[in-house]
Amino acid sequence: MKIIVDAFGGDNAPLEALKGCEMAVSEYGYKILLCGDENKIKNVCKENNISLDNMEIEDTKEVITMDDSPGEILKSKKNSSMGIGLKLLADNKGDAFISAGNSGALVMGATFIAKRIKGVKRPAFSPVMPKDKGVFMLLDSGANLECRSDVLSQFGIMGSIYMKKVIGVTNPRVGLLNVGTEEHKGTDNLQEAFKLLTNEKTINFIGNVEAREVPADAADVVVTDGFTGNIALKLYEGVAGTLLKKIKNVFLSNLKTKIAALLVMKQIKKLKKDVDYREYGGAPVLGIKHPVYKSHGSADAVMFKNGINFAAKYAKSKVIDEIEKVVLNKT
Amino acid sequence: MKIIVDAFGGDNAPLEALKGCEMAVSEYGYKILLCGDENKIKNVCKENNISLDNMEIEDTKEVITMDDSPGEILKSKKNSSMGIGLKLLADNKGDAFISAGNSGALVMGATFIAKRIKGVKRPAFSPVMPKDKGVFMLLDSGANLECRSDVLSQFGIMGSIYMKKVIGVTNPRVGLLNVGTEEHKGTDNLQEAFKLLTNEKTINFIGNVEAREVPADAADVVVTDGFTGNIALKLYEGVAGTLLKKIKNVFLSNLKTKIAALLVMKQIKKLKKDVDYREYGGAPVLGIKHPVYKSHGSADAVMFKNGINFAAKYAKSKVIDEIEKVVLNKT
Repeated sequence: MKIIVDAFGGDNAPLEALKGCEMAVSEYGYKILLCGDENKIKNVCKENNISLDNMEIEDTKEVITMDDSPGEILKSKKNSSMGIGLKLLADNKGDAFISAGNSGALVMGATFIAKRIKGVKRPAFSPVMPKDKGVFMLLDSGANLECRSDVLSQFGIMGSIYMKKVIGVTNPRVGLLNVGTEEHKGTDNLQEAFKLLTNEKTINFIGNVEAREVPADAADVVVTDGFTGNIALKLYEGVAGTLLKKIKNVFLSNLKTKIAALLVMKQIKKLKKDVDYREYGGAPVLGIKHPVYKSHGSADAVMFKNGINFAAKYAKSKVIDEIEKVVLNKT
Repeated sequence: MKIIVDAFGGDNAPLEALKGCEMAVSEYGYKILLCGDENKIKNVCKENNISLDNMEIEDTKEVITMDDSPGEILKSKKNSSMGIGLKLLADNKGDAFISAGNSGALVMGATFIAKRIKGVKRPAFSPVMPKDKGVFMLLDSGANLECRSDVLSQFGIMGSIYMKKVIGVTNPRVGLLNVGTEEHKGTDNLQEAFKLLTNEKTINFIGNVEAREVPADAADVVVTDGFTGNIALKLYEGVAGTLLKKIKNVFLSNLKTKIAALLVMKQIKKLKKDVDYREYGGAPVLGIKHPVYKSHGSADAVMFKNGINFAAKYAKSKVIDEIEKVVLNKT
């Protein structure tokens, strides 16, 4: 298993990415193909005592930044670490590609360099997120601002296959994010998507789900358009972040609360980890012919290592073959 | 100040509504015009020792339930406690109307019975919600699934006036909820709304805001369409609810954590109150010619009393006159 890694994506690149790669090599035995400035990579590894065993380097000088417009990956930044990484993936030089960089550029590059699965209308940015117990997939979370009903229906299929084969959920429950649970709720487009998903025999569609129930356990796959999904993804992070900050302040109130903090420290740390969706390694870009995986922009080494492992699982899982089979069967 | 109250709206009606009314009469000296089944109201008050001083009753037998389609308020349920309450409001029999019942029916009834302010294109369901410090308004949160740019721009005006005059925020910051902060982000419609809001000289438009920043303090008024707003509103509640449940479980883990719970009990209770958006009394339906106010469906007596007080403040505030003035000035 060889994973192609964008060593220059994310807030903590290249250091945390390189540390994560080293861990992935030693823990899982994966091979790594690093994309990025060879001199810089070697210097950072030397300074931080990171082994480059089982890693190759594809020397690329350009970097896609968070400020770059996504389209630049096909133009001025096509030779960036992300652009070259995707090209190597398309040329079968590795089994999966991972980056913690600009999500928009990654989706754009995945679509036009690694290319879509035959029959897939739109790719979906598909983060795996924590719920009360376990995880769920929210797709699309930003690849397509507006989505026609047939596109939403395909998202249900793709998400269901991923959750089954990579995360190991038996018969994943697929829900359509809507303003109410009744069939007649939402726009005409959503009502049409409800019908298409209901008629989709390969998935376990449970109907509309309300946002209030999603964090508890509304469904294993939550289908929505990329605009709504992106808002939901970020709000999820924002509400949890603000609330955890408030809890921290509670414990800092006075001597009594500081003593309390010592008594629950271990459990609170676990809770913070449980609700930190960066822990889950990131988001596959579903609908692409090769496994493309997004790690969180602020991922540290352990999170990046987890991302590499999920990218490898995705590559091993035959998700892409099954998506192609199911989708082609209907077209 | 006379507040018309739907005594039969919400999960805890009529008991909690009636208790809330009694509190509002004794604390603030408001007069109350109750709409609902007179016999039932009198029985519940007698059984629970609730005084009906300074309250009149408009006897109505029908009730709008959560399962009723919103349109029924204009048809089979026009003589319900909510329908009659809105009719009394339209006939100037009270200064404001409050209900904890079916939000969709309330918006529909407000629009067609109490009617829109001249020049207002669409009413907005406009909850006031907690942020890290203080509150913000999220509008629209469900009255209109899709909103044209000119409608979004009016929401910015209405929200700004309300936050200034009722909540007391100086120069409220108005933000447009979007998938990124840059001007070119989002759909064509949102880009157009960005331009209209920028050109709107009566408000302090700060540009696009991302959902991640909203719970901290992105803006005082967050403008969005009713679909996205409804998802955001409910997700806000869902994430906070799930997280608070997890924290409760942390404290129940073992003897040590139970001792910790005793030490921080007071602060945690305050925190729960701070993040419970039912505490803020509810949501005005902005854009209507008379003050229409929604209390949370699960409001208890104190929350309902707070709602009555906000409805009264809204009535006193001259918000409606100012919305009419600003809106008419541009048409």
